[in-house]
Amino acid sequence: MATQQSTSPRTRRGSRTDKPTIADVAALAGVSVSAVSKVVNNRPGISPPTRQRVWDAAEKLRWSPSATAVALRGARTRAIGMVAGRSADVLAADPHFSVLISGIEAELAPADYGLLLHIVGEEPGAEERAYRRLAEERRVDGVILTESRIGDSRFELLRQLRLPAVLVGTPWREDPIVSVRAGGEQDAGIREAVHHLAELGHRHIAYVSGPEDRVHTVFRRRVFEAALGERGLRPTRIVISEFTADAAVKAVRRLLAEPDRRPTAVLFANDTMAVAGMSAARRLGFDVPRDLSVIGYDDLPVGELVYPRLTTIGQDLVQLGRAAATAMFGLLDSGRSEPVEPTAVRPPGLLVRESTGPAARGA
Amino acid sequence: MATQQSTSPRTRRGSRTDKPTIADVAALAGVSVSAVSKVVNNRPGISPPTRQRVWDAAEKLRWSPSATAVALRGARTRAIGMVAGRSADVLAADPHFSVLISGIEAELAPADYGLLLHIVGEEPGAEERAYRRLAEERRVDGVILTESRIGDSRFELLRQLRLPAVLVGTPWREDPIVSVRAGGEQDAGIREAVHHLAELGHRHIAYVSGPEDRVHTVFRRRVFEAALGERGLRPTRIVISEFTADAAVKAVRRLLAEPDRRPTAVLFANDTMAVAGMSAARRLGFDVPRDLSVIGYDDLPVGELVYPRLTTIGQDLVQLGRAAATAMFGLLDSGRSEPVEPTAVRPPGLLVRESTGPAARGA
Repeated sequence: MATQQSTSPRTRRGSRTDKPTIADVAALAGVSVSAVSKVVNNRPGISPPTRQRVWDAAEKLRWSPSATAVALRGARTRAIGMVAGRSADVLAADPHFSVLISGIEAELAPADYGLLLHIVGEEPGAEERAYRRLAEERRVDGVILTESRIGDSRFELLRQLRLPAVLVGTPWREDPIVSVRAGGEQDAGIREAVHHLAELGHRHIAYVSGPEDRVHTVFRRRVFEAALGERGLRPTRIVISEFTADAAVKAVRRLLAEPDRRPTAVLFANDTMAVAGMSAARRLGFDVPRDLSVIGYDDLPVGELVYPRLTTIGQDLVQLGRAAATAMFGLLDSGRSEPVEPTAVRPPGLLVRESTGPAARGA
Repeated sequence: MATQQSTSPRTRRGSRTDKPTIADVAALAGVSVSAVSKVVNNRPGISPPTRQRVWDAAEKLRWSPSATAVALRGARTRAIGMVAGRSADVLAADPHFSVLISGIEAELAPADYGLLLHIVGEEPGAEERAYRRLAEERRVDGVILTESRIGDSRFELLRQLRLPAVLVGTPWREDPIVSVRAGGEQDAGIREAVHHLAELGHRHIAYVSGPEDRVHTVFRRRVFEAALGERGLRPTRIVISEFTADAAVKAVRRLLAEPDRRPTAVLFANDTMAVAGMSAARRLGFDVPRDLSVIGYDDLPVGELVYPRLTTIGQDLVQLGRAAATAMFGLLDSGRSEPVEPTAVRPPGLLVRESTGPAARGA
């Protein structure tokens, strides 16, 4: 105990003399201590100029709210974790993630929270290891998960680790996880897309989907088949593929190879695939939309950059990201295991742009 | 002291009985303690199967290396910070960042490091506040900066905060910062692009640049003008713009509006602008490359998705990201303020694809 007795008082006295207190900040800013606390905890009821004054005072005094807070057991880390069991290039290859993260950051930033990204690769156990570290080292207050899987083992692990978690997407069956998803009927957008194509006279419609270990992939294929059924149609082709541009190009080459089975319209599982597929078709001499109508999914920025502009099923990924962050703050504030209030994200809907048109004659 | 004396021994005894030690892990894995230490600190000299065995043992025993390490003063956080003074949608709007982050993650992940992202918005002081928090709360071991600015104030701040920092890009003048950048002559790619266009018979070449508060923006414009000079040409137009698709569309509308001053080729400051500009031109009835040649910058994935494929100046952003992370690890391991070894990233070079062709007749 000798060491302890000699060091700990010194540290305490030291911290008193060296470190400014919240009271010093309140005094310099000319506000109450509780006002400072409200500002640093990003609570409402403080005017922007006052907030600014408090932060200026904190900076002038080199006072950092959490520098003291983190000394307390269980103090907040002001970081939310996101672990992706994907290869490091996922952010480059799949803008879906980047857009989602933009939405998450839009809520984290004003609360002075950061997003701790771990892109751990696809080797088995890597994800679990990352979650264990985050929990045991208290690196994050909670984690946001994406890509709900069939028989997803992450939820149970996170409960064991007592790490608050929010899933962006639709859990498989009754998986015990707080989730945010678009409002309204799941994947109504795909039904809209099919009916849109049917109205345009398309009878030969193909679907290029992602890997079927994802929950949404299976859901969407079923909705696609059901919607065609409502029109007395059956899929010309369903290609189970990967979420990559290369996979989309391969799929299009196959779909357009056989004149007798050639679709006049193709739905893709995401916008990157749709844009790549559209280019592949045009390179093969098929005009879009004259010879082939193309529909994507996600409403990523790229869809508006290209010519023709991509008709796509817009899901509001930014809003989903914001909702996930908001649900997380709800969990952290309430300590409960359900979000404080249901999140409202507009249902995925069809955005008709330039890549869909009437079915080609004689098709 | 009463409380201390009563609680602290309990905690210590508790931690002894509850917490497994590195020796337990070594025993279970059947390796030496130093071998376990090598594995968890990601040092060389341990075979993959052994590494796996150690991690399995660590998991079985619920032992987390840093859970003990972080108890020590100055322990590593296993997180690298990245603060962007941009609006939250930067990741969605500017894939440049996502690709760079992919490169950074490619090096961080194998070392079990995470990237702590703070996208703090553009309000004055927000960036500085974020850096202060990261330093004072010991949230990260160091930070990676992008977008070197003219008269950049971040470097001095980070030195005051004693936060190891690596800049991706070219510092302005003699700014005191470890930086990684493409090898070879700076922006040689732009010279290549100009000569490529000149070879194709282009005499009317415009440049749509980004905001001139960025160091690289000014550099690149100068290289552009110099390269034209070498061919006895002068810029038809230089549009100082923003790094956005909308800005690119506006610029193209202006450039193509006046027949007498109309360029036959346009260089854009990034690929997103180039793709948007290409689509805008085609929507106005100008074929690419027949009526207008277009060149981008960055070699982002989108350039290969579109039709025609984008001719662009490829800078290896993934490699730049990797080099930045490697330089950071060098700083952390050596405690020195220069990177342990110079980073080699291939110089930006012109990638000729489908969006450039011979100058239109009579142009």
